[in-house]
Amino acid sequence: MSTFGDYFRVTTYGESHCRSVGCIVDGVPPGMELTEDDIQPQMTRRRPGQSALTTPRDEKDKVEIQSGTEFGITLGTPIAMIVRNQDQRPKDYGNSTMDLYPRPSHADWTYLEKYGVKASSGGGRSSARETIGRVAAGAIAEKYLKLAYGIEIVAFVSSVGKIHMFPPSATHPTPSTNPAFLSLLDTITREKVDEFVPVRCPDAASSAKMAEEIAEFRDRQDSIGGTVTCVIRNVPTGLGEPCFDKIEAMLAHAMLSIPATKGFEVGSGFGGCEVPGSIHNDPFVLAPEVPPLETGATKNGIPRPRLTTKTNNSGGIQGGITNGAPIYFRVGFKPPATIGQAQETATYDGAATGVLEAKGRHDPCVVPRAVPIVEAMAALVVIDALMAQQSRQQTRSLLPPLKGSTSKEA
Amino acid sequence: MSTFGDYFRVTTYGESHCRSVGCIVDGVPPGMELTEDDIQPQMTRRRPGQSALTTPRDEKDKVEIQSGTEFGITLGTPIAMIVRNQDQRPKDYGNSTMDLYPRPSHADWTYLEKYGVKASSGGGRSSARETIGRVAAGAIAEKYLKLAYGIEIVAFVSSVGKIHMFPPSATHPTPSTNPAFLSLLDTITREKVDEFVPVRCPDAASSAKMAEEIAEFRDRQDSIGGTVTCVIRNVPTGLGEPCFDKIEAMLAHAMLSIPATKGFEVGSGFGGCEVPGSIHNDPFVLAPEVPPLETGATKNGIPRPRLTTKTNNSGGIQGGITNGAPIYFRVGFKPPATIGQAQETATYDGAATGVLEAKGRHDPCVVPRAVPIVEAMAALVVIDALMAQQSRQQTRSLLPPLKGSTSKEA
Amino acid sequence: MSTFGDYFRVTTYGESHCRSVGCIVDGVPPGMELTEDDIQPQMTRRRPGQSALTTPRDEKDKVEIQSGTEFGITLGTPIAMIVRNQDQRPKDYGNSTMDLYPRPSHADWTYLEKYGVKASSGGGRSSARETIGRVAAGAIAEKYLKLAYGIEIVAFVSSVGKIHMFPPSATHPTPSTNPAFLSLLDTITREKVDEFVPVRCPDAASSAKMAEEIAEFRDRQDSIGGTVTCVIRNVPTGLGEPCFDKIEAMLAHAMLSIPATKGFEVGSGFGGCEVPGSIHNDPFVLAPEVPPLETGATKNGIPRPRLTTKTNNSGGIQGGITNGAPIYFRVGFKPPATIGQAQETATYDGAATGVLEAKGRHDPCVVPRAVPIVEAMAALVVIDALMAQQSRQQTRSLLPPLKGSTSKEA
Amino acid sequence: MSTFGDYFRVTTYGESHCRSVGCIVDGVPPGMELTEDDIQPQMTRRRPGQSALTTPRDEKDKVEIQSGTEFGITLGTPIAMIVRNQDQRPKDYGNSTMDLYPRPSHADWTYLEKYGVKASSGGGRSSARETIGRVAAGAIAEKYLKLAYGIEIVAFVSSVGKIHMFPPSATHPTPSTNPAFLSLLDTITREKVDEFVPVRCPDAASSAKMAEEIAEFRDRQDSIGGTVTCVIRNVPTGLGEPCFDKIEAMLAHAMLSIPATKGFEVGSGFGGCEVPGSIHNDPFVLAPEVPPLETGATKNGIPRPRLTTKTNNSGGIQGGITNGAPIYFRVGFKPPATIGQAQETATYDGAATGVLEAKGRHDPCVVPRAVPIVEAMAALVVIDALMAQQSRQQTRSLLPPLKGSTSKEA
Repeated sequence: MSTFGDYFRVTTYGESHCRSVGCIVDGVPPGMELTEDDIQPQMTRRRPGQSALTTPRDEKDKVEIQSGTEFGITLGTPIAMIVRNQDQRPKDYGNSTMDLYPRPSHADWTYLEKYGVKASSGGGRSSARETIGRVAAGAIAEKYLKLAYGIEIVAFVSSVGKIHMFPPSATHPTPSTNPAFLSLLDTITREKVDEFVPVRCPDAASSAKMAEEIAEFRDRQDSIGGTVTCVIRNVPTGLGEPCFDKIEAMLAHAMLSIPATKGFEVGSGFGGCEVPGSIHNDPFVLAPEVPPLETGATKNGIPRPRLTTKTNNSGGIQGGITNGAPIYFRVGFKPPATIGQAQETATYDGAATGVLEAKGRHDPCVVPRAVPIVEAMAALVVIDALMAQQSRQQTRSLLPPLKGSTSKEA
Repeated sequence: MSTFGDYFRVTTYGESHCRSVGCIVDGVPPGMELTEDDIQPQMTRRRPGQSALTTPRDEKDKVEIQSGTEFGITLGTPIAMIVRNQDQRPKDYGNSTMDLYPRPSHADWTYLEKYGVKASSGGGRSSARETIGRVAAGAIAEKYLKLAYGIEIVAFVSSVGKIHMFPPSATHPTPSTNPAFLSLLDTITREKVDEFVPVRCPDAASSAKMAEEIAEFRDRQDSIGGTVTCVIRNVPTGLGEPCFDKIEAMLAHAMLSIPATKGFEVGSGFGGCEVPGSIHNDPFVLAPEVPPLETGATKNGIPRPRLTTKTNNSGGIQGGITNGAPIYFRVGFKPPATIGQAQETATYDGAATGVLEAKGRHDPCVVPRAVPIVEAMAALVVIDALMAQQSRQQTRSLLPPLKGSTSKEA
Repeated sequence: MSTFGDYFRVTTYGESHCRSVGCIVDGVPPGMELTEDDIQPQMTRRRPGQSALTTPRDEKDKVEIQSGTEFGITLGTPIAMIVRNQDQRPKDYGNSTMDLYPRPSHADWTYLEKYGVKASSGGGRSSARETIGRVAAGAIAEKYLKLAYGIEIVAFVSSVGKIHMFPPSATHPTPSTNPAFLSLLDTITREKVDEFVPVRCPDAASSAKMAEEIAEFRDRQDSIGGTVTCVIRNVPTGLGEPCFDKIEAMLAHAMLSIPATKGFEVGSGFGGCEVPGSIHNDPFVLAPEVPPLETGATKNGIPRPRLTTKTNNSGGIQGGITNGAPIYFRVGFKPPATIGQAQETATYDGAATGVLEAKGRHDPCVVPRAVPIVEAMAALVVIDALMAQQSRQQTRSLLPPLKGSTSKEA
Repeated sequence: MSTFGDYFRVTTYGESHCRSVGCIVDGVPPGMELTEDDIQPQMTRRRPGQSALTTPRDEKDKVEIQSGTEFGITLGTPIAMIVRNQDQRPKDYGNSTMDLYPRPSHADWTYLEKYGVKASSGGGRSSARETIGRVAAGAIAEKYLKLAYGIEIVAFVSSVGKIHMFPPSATHPTPSTNPAFLSLLDTITREKVDEFVPVRCPDAASSAKMAEEIAEFRDRQDSIGGTVTCVIRNVPTGLGEPCFDKIEAMLAHAMLSIPATKGFEVGSGFGGCEVPGSIHNDPFVLAPEVPPLETGATKNGIPRPRLTTKTNNSGGIQGGITNGAPIYFRVGFKPPATIGQAQETATYDGAATGVLEAKGRHDPCVVPRAVPIVEAMAALVVIDALMAQQSRQQTRSLLPPLKGSTSKEA
């Protein structure tokens, strides 16, 4: 369905060419300062037309809050947000070949099989515009996470085609054993990532090569995939709901729901499956003292975890539950299906095979614009898990203390 | 939480050392023949003690249906199933070092952080025994899927450590472009996979090497990871609920909820992100005529899809919706955290660092026993998506036919 | 939360004085003709300012579909609908006494206790404007139910204060044993009900008395309650999901979620608890032959139920499941809390007691305008139960037929 | 479905004649002392065979905890509980008339219409045995509510047939304006109620008349309905989730899901709809000082609400949210459908009409045994709402305080 989350619940709507796209966010904490200014920056990072490497479709993507706030303060009631589709041309796709041929690897045919109705833009709801509501909702979640725990979520492009920022090697089948990678995770910021627009890969050499690669694919009317890596810092311990809603399961769900994704790996990931347990295991150490963050948690005397791990192959998650170390994961995006090149393919009715030449505007590589979407979905997962755990902790805190049993108190 | 699925809803219970483990399955179609004999085979494939390469903990894992059937026929009411824990030793883990040290990369510490209570077996619900309820529920789903659509779900071990059945190569960064791999997906059966017990990798040479590898790790009291590949054949078109519950998102959620998983990739996966769109796109072709399967769908005149794709980099999914081609995906499992080797790590209170020598019984590599768990979770995802789509189709079929509009009928 | 329904899922948003109110409806069957013209009539029946007996707040309540349709056909994707608040005066309530005193029996104080934030209109989300999204969503559900099964949902005012259309008597402690009442249920239409605007009680004598009663209460700046009775005809058998989501449980949930409701009774209701089982039981009889309705169900050969009941104390529901007879129920609405009379009450901080004189516009009796809201919520319950059952039936239909067992086929 | 609650989630299973009945409870707070001794008392109050006025079916209804506790302490993981069906006679109902005729007003026919399969006991899941899981789960919820907030839930029989403890009168169309009724609500305990076993109406005169009435109906092989009133004391303010999950909506849902229920009214109820707003409104007053309860809330410095209401027609709920005053409501139960008298009714196939003489064991009046079921369902509603609000409050408490805005802090 079009709803994500149990506690902080987002419902999105909108196709490529309807009046507006948007969402309703239910469960937003009351009493938080919130205006469109908190939301617009991520909308702008996501919007099309940012550079010569992205789709020329031009949309301002200006968000309007409809409800749930008064005088800039959240009421605790649902927040509806809408973004008008300026470029609203339902007929634009209706050329003769587009009517005859479902685009290969696009959603035209499967949407028709599923719903029995053909939107003029094919799989209208599979459009990247559907992600606008996610980014708007994610921005609200992020604001809360920052205020309450100083949680920082930063995504960046880690590969385009065969060009990797941290290519797997014999020494490091997974970057999780590479100190340079771990150090980047500790320090990377969105500002730093945006210095590398249009690619958003925070390494000058890689970024330049990637830009060149994307331009080449664009020029040949072809497309190419890539990966986005994301880190979440300052997450409290205890988030994630075993057994089915482990935090990595929710992240995987969230990420694979983003259009064009093909894979998800957390912590050491697939590479980690090749490392012996004796190396892969993350020993516990006493957490270093650090100056306290200016957060709600600090002001409320919520202690930082006593332990941390020496290495972090776990990616901050053990048994499906956060351990306070940075969570990091990587998401794979396929080459966009819509390409300018002619493609031989069957007609809808299978009666003939012919050549489809796509119209419509598209990105040759989606990863640069996927960065804020990955961040938004990560925020939605974390806030939902946080609210679940806050309910448990508050509920638990009212019980009489246990004593003298084999059950050990935290 | 401990519930999975909206239509075919499974709720599991049970720790490592309580009276029993099991589940309640709600939404099982009424009027289906079902006895314990339909469920036990997968339980037996999952159970410990199958070979010298798996944990020596010995459990019969005999399933008992408590409700929801009468005279071997499902009533449509919830089916409860229980498996008694024979080997019920809550104190077994209570040695002195286990009480002092949380096991590295295990769930001992995060469970304590989350719940504030220490089970005698550490993160008791993170035990592999928790998966028993999943496998029991999955077996019911599989029976239905087979009867209704001839759906076949087969998983197998595709790598152990660095030993891969289809290692990535310059020509094939992803096996999805490799005809040998695709041909295996079309033909592999569970019987074939089980010829390669204890490893369950259906290739004699790879299997032998993997068995040797696992034995070596076992002998050094170390552990190693691996991957499981799974194919789902004969899936109808139209399954998967955009935008958040795309079929690959649900599969990713399901797979990453299995203990010890680190990654999920579908179709061409991460390797596919390195392939140009012009090659990666799957052109449509007329579906070949094949002899009809003996299924409920055939008997009810439900047509097979008119189109299929020439290649299958999409892994049977486009826009989050099945296109009728085989779905396939790969799941990464980390090296088990519990190893016999001494490990230096901090105490629970962080006051000291010392050496933990783990007791308890464990597998040196989990992938052979993970095979039926992956199959079960895949079945749960598919049946839930199928029931959602069946509701839509039946609902839709009662509407007046559309005519003369730009909306095209399926 | 602000979401209702599992299959046909409505999420609403909006307070009394924000930019707009509205909803997103997910799960709408694809391929149905739908425009604003299908929705506006119920919006108009609900809107304020309809007569001298309702609140003078004037709102056009013009609905705009944002998404989910193209060329007047539903796509199967979420339908967002918005209604702009014309009369948007957040400060209007901010007089000095309103800031000091929570209004008795209104939601001002409980909203503040719950959310810790005081909206300028008090419990802004408890406003009757919140019901706009429900009515809009209900209108879509009703269109489908009519096309597919000829389902008719008609509500009417059955009492205002002590004036009852069918007052309980010694012979008929419940109207369900009264033939005049049952005959009305069989024949009443919305057109008939609206002949009795502004009261919507379809009996000339009662209606006149009720209008007089309401006018009197209005003139004394007081308020009065009443009840709405609703009938649902042509419901198929088999709807309702035991054990927690019985159809009457869902109806009760839906009705008690409408602002100002105090009670719900189904079929014979509370009066039926005083009737002996030997009279209360509804014997089965062969269903009479009737000319088939022009519906999707008829065209698809879905048979009408073979049996019906001679009496209908059950209100069309047995064991939580519909039996095909008319469902009927009654909902009680309290006198509106906002009255013009001065009321002595405590200040928010409890420091003093004083006299509150309410401003704001309000209805002296809500039942006439509650009629379309009750109908809308009934439609949402029925369509959700219908889609659940359609999933089950379609799923079941693909299983091999059973034979020779004690389980008997339908 | 068979699941109730979002935070404290109960899933039940079991028919009348299968191996066992029971439930899984997910979301139980960790660190609470819990053994079977906490649960058995309510099971015993519910069980059949308690007196000559209830069904002679004899079941010990001994509950066994399967999981989720260790050494008598909850782990925070799912708690499975089972009760074996001792009296397991699937064939017992299979007499010739029972096979031919669906019992009037029972669930035999609707279950067959819904599921297409006939259980040997008819609508097996509509059996009162299904409520065992509810009562077991409710007992856990009640223990928590008592420890954390001193919440007390007490239900009692308020009418049998036409015999009412508080019959409506001209002065008091609703008992909510009757001081004797309100005083009873403040003081009634379960111990007091059980002094009046077998009827459980805590008034000697009424109880005697009711017992006589039930005995008469039993002797004539007939049955009679009644009502149960329930009060919930010491509920914190702020529970209930607008707009669809108002606390009274959840209570109505819960109560109408109990077998044989026909109505629900809260606070002043249907009678309150006849009272003018100027009388019905509950003015706020400063809450009286009372000695603090020995609860977790008190120990954690959670303040009692500053205000209360002078009258309580609202039944402790305003705008769908608790205001701290006692919640009370009434539930109507119809006369049991299974009666010994011969009934003329149609056969399943409608081909003939004949006389059904029911076998099986049944209660002539269900209200005495319904008392613990009503209490259990009330506890499930309250704990779920409490956990939702605790999540919100804890989330909110980490935000920076607001100042100088028109939004007022609690």
